[in-house]
Amino acid sequence: MTPREQDQHSHSLHSRPQRVRVQQFGVSLDGIGAGEDQTLERPFGRGRFGDIDPGELFRWAGATASWTLRTEPGGSRGLEDYLLRDYSHGIGAEIMGRNKFGPVRGPWPDEDWTGWWGDEPPFRCPVFVLTHHRRPSFTLADTTFHFLDATPQEALQQALTAADGKDVRIGGGVSTVRQFLDADLIDEMHVAIAPLEFGSGLKLWDAPEDLTDRFHLEKIPAPSGATHCFFWRR
Amino acid sequence: MTPREQDQHSHSLHSRPQRVRVQQFGVSLDGIGAGEDQTLERPFGRGRFGDIDPGELFRWAGATASWTLRTEPGGSRGLEDYLLRDYSHGIGAEIMGRNKFGPVRGPWPDEDWTGWWGDEPPFRCPVFVLTHHRRPSFTLADTTFHFLDATPQEALQQALTAADGKDVRIGGGVSTVRQFLDADLIDEMHVAIAPLEFGSGLKLWDAPEDLTDRFHLEKIPAPSGATHCFFWRR
Repeated sequence: MTPREQDQHSHSLHSRPQRVRVQQFGVSLDGIGAGEDQTLERPFGRGRFGDIDPGELFRWAGATASWTLRTEPGGSRGLEDYLLRDYSHGIGAEIMGRNKFGPVRGPWPDEDWTGWWGDEPPFRCPVFVLTHHRRPSFTLADTTFHFLDATPQEALQQALTAADGKDVRIGGGVSTVRQFLDADLIDEMHVAIAPLEFGSGLKLWDAPEDLTDRFHLEKIPAPSGATHCFFWRR
Repeated sequence: MTPREQDQHSHSLHSRPQRVRVQQFGVSLDGIGAGEDQTLERPFGRGRFGDIDPGELFRWAGATASWTLRTEPGGSRGLEDYLLRDYSHGIGAEIMGRNKFGPVRGPWPDEDWTGWWGDEPPFRCPVFVLTHHRRPSFTLADTTFHFLDATPQEALQQALTAADGKDVRIGGGVSTVRQFLDADLIDEMHVAIAPLEFGSGLKLWDAPEDLTDRFHLEKIPAPSGATHCFFWRR
């Protein structure tokens, strides 16, 4: 039997303030979220031991029932499925770094290329891409991409307005999350540490404990081998 | 950086089949979810050691930020907040036993009494109350209560139709969950074991492992002291 108090928690979702969240961010045991030399074919770049395979970094996610690219029925409905299926709930806008939009660096050679997220990007909300090279906004299905040459604070202000009362997700990559952490703009963060090392690449941290001066930290080892780190402000 | 595959998982939520789920069900270390002698003032009844306090059984939930009855800001945003805030997502109908609706036994003495869930019940969907004593349906805010004298199979059929493609939650209490388990109608279950004993009362199980012939079981101890058990069909 569920107590009345417990059932009522859904009410609270309607009156909460907007939060700024990182969700399902993946790093290795050595704190690396992506390698160097990203290309169209190698979106996570290269570590010391070779190309970084996102399938390994996100193996825990791929084992869940809610993983979209699953080609056969099944998948777990444990803890990690809860983490995965929360991804879009309550999110009204995303901010991402340019490297999450695509591998192009410098001026845009071809504005016809609309990023590596396909014709139906999964964001389904306004997405603000941070770049020094602006280009016109465009819409693909339910997602509109805007390109901003802005500080984290300025970008966040726009995203909070666009999110219309919902939360803003800081989508990555590593440098973008670090920028927003350094500017102290993040309220909550879920980072999954995969049980492998990349040796070199873009580091989120030396250890999750680096952030405990500002955040509560809960570390939950999962049977998948991943360790889930949850941070929220002190 | 989040891989494209991962972001796309939200699509899968739209095409999934309907599931039958138990969520956030609470039991003691000795498998007890409620005591005997429920009354209006004592909704969880009495165990061997005195009245059962739902606040103790659901202490883990009360510590989260998403807990509605929280009177001051704060609360955790770790694993248990994910479990709590998933409560209403994707749910289109609930089935509950009569004892979750109220403490009255036998014929209804007064149909003006509309259950102990207040004027704005938290379910916000059709709720099917299993009882041998039918009474007319009524609506309170977004929740409509229907009263069925039906087998679990018959009730589930009605709830699945009413849920309009979404999932059905089996809301409890203990006897109702047991009935649906015995009829093999449950797809998934999250049960939180609180670190205390009640000594006597309504038992869900001797141990969670009782169910592993039919279900995968993942047990996750949380820093709160609760152990979260996730079950999904083999």
